[in-house]
Amino acid sequence: MKIYYLGPKGTYSEQALLIYIKNKKGYILKELSTIPDIIESLNYDSEAIVPIENSIEGSVNVTLDMLINDFEGIKIKGEIILPISHCLIGCETIDFNDIKSVVSHPQALAQCRKFIKNNIPNAKIISSNSTASAIKEIINKKGAVAICGENAAKLYGLKVISNNIQDFKENSTRFVILAYNDSNRTGNDKTSIVFSVKNKPGALNSILEVFTKENINMTKIESRPSKKILGEYVFWVDIEGHRCDNHLNIVLNRIKSKTVFLKVLGSYPKYEVKR
Amino acid sequence: MKIYYLGPKGTYSEQALLIYIKNKKGYILKELSTIPDIIESLNYDSEAIVPIENSIEGSVNVTLDMLINDFEGIKIKGEIILPISHCLIGCETIDFNDIKSVVSHPQALAQCRKFIKNNIPNAKIISSNSTASAIKEIINKKGAVAICGENAAKLYGLKVISNNIQDFKENSTRFVILAYNDSNRTGNDKTSIVFSVKNKPGALNSILEVFTKENINMTKIESRPSKKILGEYVFWVDIEGHRCDNHLNIVLNRIKSKTVFLKVLGSYPKYEVKR
Repeated sequence: MKIYYLGPKGTYSEQALLIYIKNKKGYILKELSTIPDIIESLNYDSEAIVPIENSIEGSVNVTLDMLINDFEGIKIKGEIILPISHCLIGCETIDFNDIKSVVSHPQALAQCRKFIKNNIPNAKIISSNSTASAIKEIINKKGAVAICGENAAKLYGLKVISNNIQDFKENSTRFVILAYNDSNRTGNDKTSIVFSVKNKPGALNSILEVFTKENINMTKIESRPSKKILGEYVFWVDIEGHRCDNHLNIVLNRIKSKTVFLKVLGSYPKYEVKR
Repeated sequence: MKIYYLGPKGTYSEQALLIYIKNKKGYILKELSTIPDIIESLNYDSEAIVPIENSIEGSVNVTLDMLINDFEGIKIKGEIILPISHCLIGCETIDFNDIKSVVSHPQALAQCRKFIKNNIPNAKIISSNSTASAIKEIINKKGAVAICGENAAKLYGLKVISNNIQDFKENSTRFVILAYNDSNRTGNDKTSIVFSVKNKPGALNSILEVFTKENINMTKIESRPSKKILGEYVFWVDIEGHRCDNHLNIVLNRIKSKTVFLKVLGSYPKYEVKR
């Protein structure tokens, strides 16, 4: 079974993937360079892992939007939550004063904004396509450093200048496993749904009050633009329970009658973070 | 009065700023290169304009997060909604087949994802700090093109290869004007608030049902991570009305008693898009 992930080697996506396939056999790892490429490559004989939200920066919009709008039939069959620790990396050790530019993915740069401002305020900030590709950009470039994970630094033989530099120390990223089937009921599951409601006062509330009355816990709520009119939204909600639970099944049917559209993206075992 | 905006000249921010200061006197324009720099530069003698949401890509997270977490006292005193039309720009006219790389701000690249995939699928995608800075990166670089507004192309004397290339034709960006005071009541106003609720079933719903019962229309709802625990959120809500309206004032007090924290970011005249 092929499984697609965001490369190059050394990305946080690769780390999450290695956790997912640990003790599983028969996976062939295929790296791709963008999230759209990954989701578009998925077929009935493959799986994929993509980042969906970070505890500091919030949702990964391209992942949400492609699952909401573009691909009928793709399901979420699992999740992995990976603790994130960013490092400042150079080709050699370097004084903060000698750093001329800092390169990384925009999400990582955003997560280290205060560190950059306090320690290397004059460095030019340069965006890259991934944390691992930032490394390729600083090789043989005097005064340039990158922000990425410690694993990537080791893999490419670079020096860690500072570690754990993210502004908020509790930093983790949630990844989802995509496939054309979701997972069977385990008794400790989550379900992801997306829906839109009429653009009128109380419409979102009429959905949320069903969850409240039925004592269903929401673990995520996110609004995404409808892409038609500014101020019109589609909502992504994760709830506890499996879509095949009797109770949740009844609740989802009740909600469906109150929405303009409702898509159940899948049920999957809740990931427990090991500390 | 100084007013800060996201430069260099030719950005969409500069276009929105020119709309805002039209027929107003005494503004001195100051360009800065990042949104954090702009918000941090603001004092009692200045104003700033920053992008806050786009109809396709959704909220500008760094703007929301700095207003939620970092700066007590900064208010929203106005809004401008700017229609966005992206162009593919080059130093000279070029065949799609000869394009080797396409450079732009990640939001603009995301908004033209399908155009890129269908027309220049083999071009390398390169992130830049702003749409206007993308132009500086393609000058004298054979085979490189940028995505930015038509104004920027004119300003820097470059060629428009294709125009209106965004995947969704209805594309607009909302900017907010920041200062240490918000605006007086006009009778056609909006108010921005942020709040957090206890992490338990029904907590968000208990807030939204106050708006529903009191017939208050929400024009935006957005969840942002609390930055403490994955799955814990702060909510940004825009509602119709001015915080000094008797009715809205009573509603805000009622909501306050149900939140963990509530911050009123300001009231300001609703912007009417001219078509």
